[in-house]
Amino acid sequence: MEKILNLLELEGNEKELFIEAAGENEQIFATLGVHEDGTPVTDEEWKSATIIIGVPNPGFVKVYPENCKYLQGRMAGPDAFLKGNYVPKDCKIAGCQGAYGQSVSEHMFAMMWALMKLIPQYRDNQFDGKWDDLGYCQTIADKNVLIFGTGDLGVSFAKLCKPFGAHTYGVRRNKEVPAEGIDFMHNFDDVDELLPEMDVVINMAPAGPITNGFMTKERLLKMKKTAIFLNGGRGSFVSSDDMYEVLSSGHLFGAGLDVLDKEPLPAEHPLWKVKNCLITPHKAGFDKIPVTFRKVAKISLENLKRYLNGEALINCIN
Amino acid sequence: MEKILNLLELEGNEKELFIEAAGENEQIFATLGVHEDGTPVTDEEWKSATIIIGVPNPGFVKVYPENCKYLQGRMAGPDAFLKGNYVPKDCKIAGCQGAYGQSVSEHMFAMMWALMKLIPQYRDNQFDGKWDDLGYCQTIADKNVLIFGTGDLGVSFAKLCKPFGAHTYGVRRNKEVPAEGIDFMHNFDDVDELLPEMDVVINMAPAGPITNGFMTKERLLKMKKTAIFLNGGRGSFVSSDDMYEVLSSGHLFGAGLDVLDKEPLPAEHPLWKVKNCLITPHKAGFDKIPVTFRKVAKISLENLKRYLNGEALINCIN
Repeated sequence: MEKILNLLELEGNEKELFIEAAGENEQIFATLGVHEDGTPVTDEEWKSATIIIGVPNPGFVKVYPENCKYLQGRMAGPDAFLKGNYVPKDCKIAGCQGAYGQSVSEHMFAMMWALMKLIPQYRDNQFDGKWDDLGYCQTIADKNVLIFGTGDLGVSFAKLCKPFGAHTYGVRRNKEVPAEGIDFMHNFDDVDELLPEMDVVINMAPAGPITNGFMTKERLLKMKKTAIFLNGGRGSFVSSDDMYEVLSSGHLFGAGLDVLDKEPLPAEHPLWKVKNCLITPHKAGFDKIPVTFRKVAKISLENLKRYLNGEALINCIN
Repeated sequence: MEKILNLLELEGNEKELFIEAAGENEQIFATLGVHEDGTPVTDEEWKSATIIIGVPNPGFVKVYPENCKYLQGRMAGPDAFLKGNYVPKDCKIAGCQGAYGQSVSEHMFAMMWALMKLIPQYRDNQFDGKWDDLGYCQTIADKNVLIFGTGDLGVSFAKLCKPFGAHTYGVRRNKEVPAEGIDFMHNFDDVDELLPEMDVVINMAPAGPITNGFMTKERLLKMKKTAIFLNGGRGSFVSSDDMYEVLSSGHLFGAGLDVLDKEPLPAEHPLWKVKNCLITPHKAGFDKIPVTFRKVAKISLENLKRYLNGEALINCIN
């Protein structure tokens, strides 16, 4: 008999589907830790839960869930749960990889268009009531877009760019494996030759031994002066200090960063004030559009069924 | 024997094509009023020119071109030449309608995405080094987009929205005439019923007796509270005072305005400082991406040939 603590925001018939999936097992529904009657999840409920579904982040778990055997995070990569003592050692941890493609790719796409059309710079002028023409803009038609990481996020981004006539180049470990929306697939060894030809370079890859620190200052300087750099993957891909140096030297048309190597980026970091750098606080993905909630619910439901049937979990990281 | 003054920025074989088209007629090439040797067009050259090609705006003509019989403006609508005494009365005036679709629609598309993803608000936080999540965003997938004006600009915008799964509604005088990229065509009588169903409403229509002042405060309030309003057509479509009132009452998710009823918008107008209003200084179109130059050159060349052959000009307004 499991005790399920379900923290998801559910809609339509989703709650019924979870009740059906749980069968005889006990299940408490408490959206983001609050019961339907408005009272918070009790210490006892945290402690006794054997399955916890829909945890936004490790800091959210206020009481050590000493009986938890399976935790379903909401994020794509729940690796942060492995670092501290958030759950018992043998607790299975799974994420919601696949739920964030639309949200993250749309956000990065919006950042790209904003940079191409000088929207951040016009916005800065707006508050001074300045009606000034800031000159030439860019377009994506017939341009080369290099995408690091060709999983859910990278492919979603490529598919947004294709209808505009962009040429999409993907970078993944094994270049023999094609991906939807990617015209030309490469591996990391090809990157130094590709960079000088690209108009937009975007990181959509997770953290890892190859991607951490991959975009060195030297590589940023290999990009065209008129190119745009975007990071929607992980902040460890590029250092904010290097980014600041390169942008303030006048290299690159602009940069759009939703993830940074230091999060939050310290308020005094000079990168915050660079005119052609657009920064958002790691918010491209998490629950920013309704479809993400629905996908998170779907993946979590599938995993609950699997767990209760003794099957292997999807997106399980341990 | 004509005297042609050609002010266009030409590239590739465009100059040769103009020379060929001119035949025996004299032609002076002076990009934006400057000869290839760096000297400006002389008073005598302005006065003696019988054909002037590529004029950016009436203010650009510093010396009254008393012999001009045909003036080819660069803008889509060269109606401003009709208002003052810029050219002789019988001078034919033509524009470059059709050259600005990509530039204007892309700019408005960038504004729409920026508003949906709260980019202006994040930008405002950026300069204070604020790492704050501003909450829910919007997407265009499966949303309703109403487009006033289904000529070059409106159709271009519709075609940018379609790949994202938007449903496009067009408004034109005769709803029996379909247009590319528009799913459902309506006329102005249908608008009041349509407005409450729309997620994005954009004006891409020229000024005229129907469109001037069409978007009253009452109509803005008929829109969903969560909808986005965009103006890339003519500022006369909506009053900036009404826009300010509606936005500051909390109605609408955001507004993106590249054209305003007063241009420049006075620095002290309160609309400049509305958080969810994005303003750019009527710059969506004019020469902001290279393709626009190429199209302007193409239309101007076609018209020069027609004029010299005694044929009717395209985009001629008098």
